[in-house]
Amino acid sequence: MCYFQYVAIYHAAGGNDRGEFHMNKGGLERRLRAPKAFELIKTAEEAAEIVRDGMVIGASGFTPSGYPKAVPLAIAARAAQANENARFQLSLYSGASVGPEIDGAWVDAGILKKRLPYHTDEKIRNSINNGTVEYVDLHLSHSTQYVNYGFLPKIDIAIVEALAITENGDLIPTSGIGNTPAFVKQADKVIVEVNLLKPMELEGMADIYVTENPPNRKPIPILHTSDRIGTPWIECGFDKIAAIVLTEMQDQTRPLAEAGSTEKQISKNIIRFLSDEVKSGRLTKNLLPLQSGIGSVANAVFYGLCESEFEGITCYTEVVQDSMLALLRTGKATAASTTAVSLSPDALTRFEKEIAFFREKIILRPQEISNSPEVARRLGVIAMNTAIEADIYGNINSTHIMGSKIMNGVGGSGDFARNGYITIFATASTAKNGAISSIVPMVSHVDHTEHDTMVIVTEQGYADLRGLSPKERAVKIMENCAHPDYKEKLFAYYGRALQSGPKHTPHILEEALSWHIAFQKNGSML
Amino acid sequence: MCYFQYVAIYHAAGGNDRGEFHMNKGGLERRLRAPKAFELIKTAEEAAEIVRDGMVIGASGFTPSGYPKAVPLAIAARAAQANENARFQLSLYSGASVGPEIDGAWVDAGILKKRLPYHTDEKIRNSINNGTVEYVDLHLSHSTQYVNYGFLPKIDIAIVEALAITENGDLIPTSGIGNTPAFVKQADKVIVEVNLLKPMELEGMADIYVTENPPNRKPIPILHTSDRIGTPWIECGFDKIAAIVLTEMQDQTRPLAEAGSTEKQISKNIIRFLSDEVKSGRLTKNLLPLQSGIGSVANAVFYGLCESEFEGITCYTEVVQDSMLALLRTGKATAASTTAVSLSPDALTRFEKEIAFFREKIILRPQEISNSPEVARRLGVIAMNTAIEADIYGNINSTHIMGSKIMNGVGGSGDFARNGYITIFATASTAKNGAISSIVPMVSHVDHTEHDTMVIVTEQGYADLRGLSPKERAVKIMENCAHPDYKEKLFAYYGRALQSGPKHTPHILEEALSWHIAFQKNGSML
Repeated sequence: MCYFQYVAIYHAAGGNDRGEFHMNKGGLERRLRAPKAFELIKTAEEAAEIVRDGMVIGASGFTPSGYPKAVPLAIAARAAQANENARFQLSLYSGASVGPEIDGAWVDAGILKKRLPYHTDEKIRNSINNGTVEYVDLHLSHSTQYVNYGFLPKIDIAIVEALAITENGDLIPTSGIGNTPAFVKQADKVIVEVNLLKPMELEGMADIYVTENPPNRKPIPILHTSDRIGTPWIECGFDKIAAIVLTEMQDQTRPLAEAGSTEKQISKNIIRFLSDEVKSGRLTKNLLPLQSGIGSVANAVFYGLCESEFEGITCYTEVVQDSMLALLRTGKATAASTTAVSLSPDALTRFEKEIAFFREKIILRPQEISNSPEVARRLGVIAMNTAIEADIYGNINSTHIMGSKIMNGVGGSGDFARNGYITIFATASTAKNGAISSIVPMVSHVDHTEHDTMVIVTEQGYADLRGLSPKERAVKIMENCAHPDYKEKLFAYYGRALQSGPKHTPHILEEALSWHIAFQKNGSML
Repeated sequence: MCYFQYVAIYHAAGGNDRGEFHMNKGGLERRLRAPKAFELIKTAEEAAEIVRDGMVIGASGFTPSGYPKAVPLAIAARAAQANENARFQLSLYSGASVGPEIDGAWVDAGILKKRLPYHTDEKIRNSINNGTVEYVDLHLSHSTQYVNYGFLPKIDIAIVEALAITENGDLIPTSGIGNTPAFVKQADKVIVEVNLLKPMELEGMADIYVTENPPNRKPIPILHTSDRIGTPWIECGFDKIAAIVLTEMQDQTRPLAEAGSTEKQISKNIIRFLSDEVKSGRLTKNLLPLQSGIGSVANAVFYGLCESEFEGITCYTEVVQDSMLALLRTGKATAASTTAVSLSPDALTRFEKEIAFFREKIILRPQEISNSPEVARRLGVIAMNTAIEADIYGNINSTHIMGSKIMNGVGGSGDFARNGYITIFATASTAKNGAISSIVPMVSHVDHTEHDTMVIVTEQGYADLRGLSPKERAVKIMENCAHPDYKEKLFAYYGRALQSGPKHTPHILEEALSWHIAFQKNGSML
């Protein structure tokens, strides 16, 4: 195939002049490093044709970073045009959340039947909660082994965004890895979206290490956050590649909500806890590798750390957000291990200009490695995740509203919370303008048990629960973390429960969920 | 000190003619391998004198195996004789449960203030539930790091049963390791009970590997169940040893309850599940290393495996019980890694005659290694643990009766359930002669979340929950695992919940705990 031919195909696939610029700049040969790759170029619509009803699709990336876009949109478009006999439904496995080109578009097209292991999309959330999509909410490190161990229906097609395809047909990932190596390995066929908008300077940021299944698994040889142990490419091979689609589509990330005073105060309390640990001699000034969930609290913590006394910080986490880049820029942090760089639109633009700086400091790993229990415990990760609600005994609900309605999912919090060094859960002490107390007698769903929770933080303060019995925990949580509007009511429940029966974890079952029931009936827990 | 002097001291310490026989047989020099050790010999009563009010005591061993006896009894006796000014209270850290010489005797003496990380003693259970003892129920692998990381009040005195003391003052453990290495390392002083009743042939069964704290921790170099990576002794040194007490006391183990037809049927269902996994190609005939909780169901499973088609089985677990010895004797199992050998009195007698055989097959590890998330995930442990109750969505209660009353504790189940290969929870479908359904709409306490539970087994059948959404799980659990007396009622709840609100995890909060409330009021869930 001559150059003019593939340029024509590229244009048919949605290329534009900006894409041309990329091609001219580096030449498409930098992206497609074997003649075989050029032969596999197809349009997104052509690639979408190989999807059949009932298939399981594995999507690359993690959060709206490194996920495929053109082919999923073409699949949705195909479904929209399909007559009754050609209708199809799909199961979708991903790393974590993906962009609206998949979750949103597929829900709109009515083709999403089952989804795992995580989502953040409002459309899919509504579909799960109205019963039209079945959702399997998995620990993110479990999701890889579920695929590799054959615990799930097999993946038919992996759709993978790549920076480039090597001489051997292996894939250079873009900005998010997730479960891509496992999906590519287990899929019958792979569709590759080579995204010309993603800068080639990303090459080398990825460090792909794939575990063998037991009983042949070896130790994961990471001793420090910054250790590189794998290859910059994902093994695939041309035999598996069904189509290569040239695209030029930016990840659809969302602007971050500005941290409000509550988030800033939570951040201050987390940093105060860490400072107190340093004062007590349990941590040093460079702490231990930080893991953090996603969102405005997490960003507030990392912005707070930029102005803290800590130095030589590292992050062993699953997502690098805007604030972690800031921490790296200040020099406070020296390295970040992650499975994705997931930025707001503004931060993404700036990041792409500074890739040379960040490529030395950020390592993109598969999520079974970024979230590995083995590595989390060895390195001693400080796990910081958000809660929807906590109860007075330290049980954490991260996923459900009022016991039944899913929000997003447990994500990687359980991988780190069980296996890290210190486990911190943060939440505002109230929600819905004070109508909901985030500290309740009994949580309506448990994602992290009393055995895992070491520290609870709200804007009111922090409760260090390590080494405390349930009753000791209750007093500390109510005293330090509950909102003043609910404190008396919580102590009253606890006091009555203490008089009513066995005293290890005092509860009155008739009342334990009554705060939630009151909210459902009257719109307020007050 | 001459021989006759230490014999006199030994007799004062409770030695008897049988002890003499041991001494004559091997000579006390085999037990105390340096002159310094002889100088440190004290009576249990003398050793007990160093205990002060408010101290934290760390006890060796794991389950009623390898725990100290004479000194704890002497401490209890001292408390019983103390006048008002000499009263004292203690915190006790152990590996898991200990024998009645500690938990029972200390509760009777009123000296136990705080207890962690696990217990099985009825007296202490009552004390926890009536509010006189504070109990911290920890994941067993967490308990080691809580001690090593300084998360708990520091250990003042470790009381350690040993087989012998080396030339350097290091300790050869007996039949249970637990947290002994960490306790010895962190304690100010160590009291050693050299138990002359424990056969010297146990020497070499222990494999002591101690991790560094992060950030200096290295990979734990276990690639196979039978890998030995450490030393047969626990580092201590004479400087730390405050007293050496010669004892001759057998571990107070209990006869095992005979497995009834329910336990046998549960065992059959677990083995059927494993066979189905082999048929599906997800496991081979030698399975993957088995972990099992303690009790009659676990024993029934292993006795069942003796007659199964499986071969070349290994066990990577925390306790070797009677049935695991049987499995090793038949040759069906080739190796067992554990932190304790904990046998019924009859099995113990037989085991001690056959130590030469078992020493080649059993490895005793510290519990941070036996329960290591790193090793559990690498080897791909099949985790089998018991539940008190499960709910229709797969959440497991392992610890609490009706939400408040502690039974034993979470033990190591969480270490394995989160990090293993397959996670199985087993329970009889009913309790209290049918008055309690073990499958309920919502569990009254959560120790293992929906995200961890892969398979639930009762005598009714098994429910393989892997890859299922909450609603799919509910139907399978109710259908396959619930007792016929409760099935209709469960489906009725589920059906109403499905109509009542968000449909990810359908619940009616007013009714979710109503089964437990009914039992509390009327003595039955029916």
